[in-house]
Amino acid sequence: MKRVLLTGAAGTLGKAMRRALSGWADELVLSDRVDISDLQVGESFQQCDLADFDAVKRLVEGCDGIVHLGGQSIEGSFDSILNGNLKGTYHIYEAARQHKVKRIFFASSNHVVGFHSRETHLDADSPMRPDSLYGVSKGFGELLARYYFDKFGVESALVRIGSCLPKPVDRRMLSTWLSEEDMADLIKRVFSVNRLACTVVYGASNNPWSWWDNRKANFLGWQPKDSSAEFETEVLANDPLLNTDHPVLLYQGGFFATAGHFEDDD
Amino acid sequence: MKRVLLTGAAGTLGKAMRRALSGWADELVLSDRVDISDLQVGESFQQCDLADFDAVKRLVEGCDGIVHLGGQSIEGSFDSILNGNLKGTYHIYEAARQHKVKRIFFASSNHVVGFHSRETHLDADSPMRPDSLYGVSKGFGELLARYYFDKFGVESALVRIGSCLPKPVDRRMLSTWLSEEDMADLIKRVFSVNRLACTVVYGASNNPWSWWDNRKANFLGWQPKDSSAEFETEVLANDPLLNTDHPVLLYQGGFFATAGHFEDDD
Amino acid sequence: MKRVLLTGAAGTLGKAMRRALSGWADELVLSDRVDISDLQVGESFQQCDLADFDAVKRLVEGCDGIVHLGGQSIEGSFDSILNGNLKGTYHIYEAARQHKVKRIFFASSNHVVGFHSRETHLDADSPMRPDSLYGVSKGFGELLARYYFDKFGVESALVRIGSCLPKPVDRRMLSTWLSEEDMADLIKRVFSVNRLACTVVYGASNNPWSWWDNRKANFLGWQPKDSSAEFETEVLANDPLLNTDHPVLLYQGGFFATAGHFEDDD
Amino acid sequence: MKRVLLTGAAGTLGKAMRRALSGWADELVLSDRVDISDLQVGESFQQCDLADFDAVKRLVEGCDGIVHLGGQSIEGSFDSILNGNLKGTYHIYEAARQHKVKRIFFASSNHVVGFHSRETHLDADSPMRPDSLYGVSKGFGELLARYYFDKFGVESALVRIGSCLPKPVDRRMLSTWLSEEDMADLIKRVFSVNRLACTVVYGASNNPWSWWDNRKANFLGWQPKDSSAEFETEVLANDPLLNTDHPVLLYQGGFFATAGHFEDDD
Amino acid sequence: MKRVLLTGAAGTLGKAMRRALSGWADELVLSDRVDISDLQVGESFQQCDLADFDAVKRLVEGCDGIVHLGGQSIEGSFDSILNGNLKGTYHIYEAARQHKVKRIFFASSNHVVGFHSRETHLDADSPMRPDSLYGVSKGFGELLARYYFDKFGVESALVRIGSCLPKPVDRRMLSTWLSEEDMADLIKRVFSVNRLACTVVYGASNNPWSWWDNRKANFLGWQPKDSSAEFETEVLANDPLLNTDHPVLLYQGGFFATAGHFEDDD
Amino acid sequence: MKRVLLTGAAGTLGKAMRRALSGWADELVLSDRVDISDLQVGESFQQCDLADFDAVKRLVEGCDGIVHLGGQSIEGSFDSILNGNLKGTYHIYEAARQHKVKRIFFASSNHVVGFHSRETHLDADSPMRPDSLYGVSKGFGELLARYYFDKFGVESALVRIGSCLPKPVDRRMLSTWLSEEDMADLIKRVFSVNRLACTVVYGASNNPWSWWDNRKANFLGWQPKDSSAEFETEVLANDPLLNTDHPVLLYQGGFFATAGHFEDDD
Repeated sequence: MKRVLLTGAAGTLGKAMRRALSGWADELVLSDRVDISDLQVGESFQQCDLADFDAVKRLVEGCDGIVHLGGQSIEGSFDSILNGNLKGTYHIYEAARQHKVKRIFFASSNHVVGFHSRETHLDADSPMRPDSLYGVSKGFGELLARYYFDKFGVESALVRIGSCLPKPVDRRMLSTWLSEEDMADLIKRVFSVNRLACTVVYGASNNPWSWWDNRKANFLGWQPKDSSAEFETEVLANDPLLNTDHPVLLYQGGFFATAGHFEDDD
Repeated sequence: MKRVLLTGAAGTLGKAMRRALSGWADELVLSDRVDISDLQVGESFQQCDLADFDAVKRLVEGCDGIVHLGGQSIEGSFDSILNGNLKGTYHIYEAARQHKVKRIFFASSNHVVGFHSRETHLDADSPMRPDSLYGVSKGFGELLARYYFDKFGVESALVRIGSCLPKPVDRRMLSTWLSEEDMADLIKRVFSVNRLACTVVYGASNNPWSWWDNRKANFLGWQPKDSSAEFETEVLANDPLLNTDHPVLLYQGGFFATAGHFEDDD
Repeated sequence: MKRVLLTGAAGTLGKAMRRALSGWADELVLSDRVDISDLQVGESFQQCDLADFDAVKRLVEGCDGIVHLGGQSIEGSFDSILNGNLKGTYHIYEAARQHKVKRIFFASSNHVVGFHSRETHLDADSPMRPDSLYGVSKGFGELLARYYFDKFGVESALVRIGSCLPKPVDRRMLSTWLSEEDMADLIKRVFSVNRLACTVVYGASNNPWSWWDNRKANFLGWQPKDSSAEFETEVLANDPLLNTDHPVLLYQGGFFATAGHFEDDD
Repeated sequence: MKRVLLTGAAGTLGKAMRRALSGWADELVLSDRVDISDLQVGESFQQCDLADFDAVKRLVEGCDGIVHLGGQSIEGSFDSILNGNLKGTYHIYEAARQHKVKRIFFASSNHVVGFHSRETHLDADSPMRPDSLYGVSKGFGELLARYYFDKFGVESALVRIGSCLPKPVDRRMLSTWLSEEDMADLIKRVFSVNRLACTVVYGASNNPWSWWDNRKANFLGWQPKDSSAEFETEVLANDPLLNTDHPVLLYQGGFFATAGHFEDDD
Repeated sequence: MKRVLLTGAAGTLGKAMRRALSGWADELVLSDRVDISDLQVGESFQQCDLADFDAVKRLVEGCDGIVHLGGQSIEGSFDSILNGNLKGTYHIYEAARQHKVKRIFFASSNHVVGFHSRETHLDADSPMRPDSLYGVSKGFGELLARYYFDKFGVESALVRIGSCLPKPVDRRMLSTWLSEEDMADLIKRVFSVNRLACTVVYGASNNPWSWWDNRKANFLGWQPKDSSAEFETEVLANDPLLNTDHPVLLYQGGFFATAGHFEDDD
Repeated sequence: MKRVLLTGAAGTLGKAMRRALSGWADELVLSDRVDISDLQVGESFQQCDLADFDAVKRLVEGCDGIVHLGGQSIEGSFDSILNGNLKGTYHIYEAARQHKVKRIFFASSNHVVGFHSRETHLDADSPMRPDSLYGVSKGFGELLARYYFDKFGVESALVRIGSCLPKPVDRRMLSTWLSEEDMADLIKRVFSVNRLACTVVYGASNNPWSWWDNRKANFLGWQPKDSSAEFETEVLANDPLLNTDHPVLLYQGGFFATAGHFEDDD
């Protein structure tokens, strides 16, 4: 890769990916609404609000690929969702089309399917059942990506990220954990395969408890190396068993599914 | 029904439904951005821009159900889609939640599945493949409706309307035609069944050429009475056979699928 | 048909079938625990408790086919279920094997799938989800029939009867109604086809609201003639719309699914 | 249609279609190995052995479409199958490709799926299970047609004809009967739709006992008008019920499935 | 776990589990019809006939979970099946409901699906096809468990145990073997997950020849560690290849499927 | 194995299998149109043109099993396909039937499914979409094998071989590579299992990029040991990334799918 755009570079996930992708691309163009001051070799920075289309167009121009982590990454008010995720994702795709960028890694989320029960085994064709406005907005992004592929040939990986953290810290993450190394490996693979098409990938490490089946994305050759099994004893000790009737245990989305509407919590 | 809100009441579809639903509800509250002056007995009117949440809240208050036809009904710029369909639909659902309206007829569109080929037989679980920004926005509405049902119990019919016109006028409509009477009958049924849940219905009359399978919505008891077969001779005479290689014949969405991006056409 | 056994002949359904099947078989052998005194031409009677194997063996001997309506037909204590439905159905099948009766019409029940939601469309391969001990016992009968077919070649129609009454009397029956004529026609057909195998049939008339799909039993050629649509206006007038949150509306089994355990109600 | 080739025109099916298609095309080019002397207005004749490629090329040149009924239509020796059905069908498709004929009605057969049991409900995606060398050769033709569509865009209807006769004459035909009028209507429809693609159609009239599901071909708009139900009484009277253990009753292909190898019968 | 009931503790499987679960629960309450004299630390014993409801109620009271291995574990007369498996399993579930025991490990059997052919790959949704009265009774237990979950929230693992022995001793067991350690690990896991629901698990070790797919139970995180592959050479040497036409090779249930009715063998 | 026939023994694949199967059978009967002069211990040779039935009958007589690699193994003229693959495979199966050979390893090809896109995950039930006349002929062989199994009980492994070479040499082979050792292991397994039936197996090693799912053939116990992952670095260095729009990247069949008709290339 020569020049790759990384949006949301100042966020937790963005920072982790900067570390993990070090040296991968000739130039990693970082972007965020807030400043980033610790640029490393091979990185450049452009401050950008994804809600501003002209700024996004300037950002995207000249890139070979986009890793789109930017936008609102937790539940929020509809206005914040609208600007960060609806407008923002549209601007990324439309700028990609105009500048002929052919491939996008889209950080979707397990929250597009968060209202499925935990005993439901999902694959790429399972119906979306978002558990939050945030989840709805990620579903919107997936539909948009599909549209840009079907009509304009812009390829996307729609990566329904589970819990990308240094290690799993509660029982739910035994199922959903994605190690930073596995995520970085997936990013690299997305940009190295001959053909990506528009492909749903569940972003989870090789966890025994997994709810998700990536068979339909096997052709990418991605094989996560890490497993939540290494952390099982530690997690079980720190996260006592809840009563099985607790609603937060019913749904894959966890507390996203049981939280009320955003404004309720104000 | 006592008091039902009809959004988009000044549009073509809205006008047709006003006629067809005459006498059905005690009060049919019409709403549109533009004025409606020919009010009939049993109708009232409230001018409203769906992008204005406070106005939508006033509109929804006191209604028993909503027939949501409003918003952008053809391809348009992202801004017009954003205001009419993304914001507008969110406002309707959020107002319904706040005012405890339990049931919504959502005018979705066949364009959420418009990139499926014409030889593909679809049912309610077929993946969405929108053929336009308009189609993406209707898919967003469906995801939002699913979310409001799973979390808050607001029931919806997600009606993927084909071509609701007095009669089919081209070959594609032999497959997609929905008579106004069949649509009105569906609206009535949606509000008379004991349970609606969140159910996808393909909005087409009893057409022999249909691409769509409504078996999973049989529990509604809707049985369209009209058929495009009555108009076959007339349509075939007026719409000559295209070369089968013409791309507009490949996709269910017709020219929506083959048109370029909205701005391209300016 | 020469000689057909009809168990449960004194019950409501048994009486209706005696009328509807009049003249069909050379001899219709009626059986029940209670006496039947109004024998018609072509009918004979043998009192029999299905829990008594020797009695069942005598009953079955010399018959060409069995219409097994007998046993407990509503929820009851486990003891009554055990005797009427577990023992009773075993006795019927085992006697049929010993006497080489090749074909059985088994009156199963929609209550073997009664815990499916009303918006779920079922076919012959949908998983059983019984809503009562009664439903569990009918599921047992279906498994037993499958076993006797796979191992011994005894053919069965496993007829998941909806609501077999002169006419539908509440909203749920708009979906589940089976007219007595349609049921009698199904019985006749089961014994006239070349091959029956072990086939699940949903016992419902041609109702627009149906939850059930009999495609996989099309080879029987059964086409119900009646429809609950004729009674829609009457039913809707007499059975007011419940609040959609009422649990009895959620499940196909209706009040079977929401009733507590049998002993609870004592 | 201007000029349509009808192969196998001297056979039983060919004769029936000549009658039923009278007046449909400007010119119906008849072809067979044997002479046809009773030419009607609008018909021409070219004697042709389908095993001779040069002859087939001359035959196909200048045609707008092909109705390919020719070849071996019952079980036979491998040599006769090879010449009539393997070579013959290849020659038709290759000549069509060279002469840019875009659409072929291919008379396939129910015997490509004849080893499915009679209680199995089939649709267009059911696996092929041929019951004879004849059935294997028709399966070869379907694969060839699929290849010519995927690679060269030649469209085909793969019509798995049941029993095309004036009326059903045994119990099996209550399931498989295809009236000549329904078949002719299907031919006309295949050449009048905008897009045909490469589509499997089960060639059966609207028979209640049908084993086959044409839903995936609904987009053609073909609705058979006739039904074996009209002949049920007559058929049942003339074709006594066999013992259900008779193997000929097990399979959809009937005696094709239970016959031994062709040479066995010499 | 504090206090767990183990039924069938004097049987072969019960003994193996006592060893393998040593130290797991604060108290393991053993139960069987016959006496157990070699109690270990942490074990207590209550003699109990599962056909006696009052005795079962006393047994279940105060337990946190139940491992239900008791009942008839091979084919037998209907009476023995009735008492051990129909009554017995009902008593366990009903006692659990009354005493609010929330979770049951139910030792079902591969014989509920034993009439599937060996080349059929099964998962949790494959239809039950029992190969014996024993298999029918285990299917009854599964339906009962499903009912107690759907209506009363009692969770169950429905473990279709293959062949739980120290090592595989014939060719069939290369597919069906479950090591005692893997089974014990599954028991522990069933009682340690946050949510169990009512979940079918095929009880087999990590055998290359497996007929069964546990994907839908992945959420339990169970990963069998043993494999029949270690014993392949030994098994093949001791169990010569049968003629492939031998009926015992056709079905997953092996000789259960080909044995006649129980009484036949008397 | 005592005496096994290996057709196509002089070809590349045949040579590799001679090496890898050394010592496996008491006698390996080699056959090819061309002479083989380097016979090893345990090998014999019979020159044979598979298009000559009498010669094939002599070849097959007295064999316990057949590994059928012979015939045309790349795209060719219809005549060469006809003789080598249509006639040749028929002769092998018919000779096997006449001489009561019960089991055949049939070297089918991934080119029977070569027109599926690379992002499509296939299993044994995926529809055939051949990419060449060669692929059509292998599909014919599969149908023929199915027929000989259904009617005459001749068992077959239908092995859709990917790329059987010493190592993968381009990017496509990262998905399709089958090591010679894995193929030889599959051959041995096919002849050592109790029951083979007629089973599709995708012939690929344990490659991370695989498009194919062999779950339904798990009962064979075949577990490929090699993986293309070992060669990834080397392959990627030598086979630069093509533009993702290049049609050869779209289909699983690679250049077979994009090549024109055979004669076109003359």
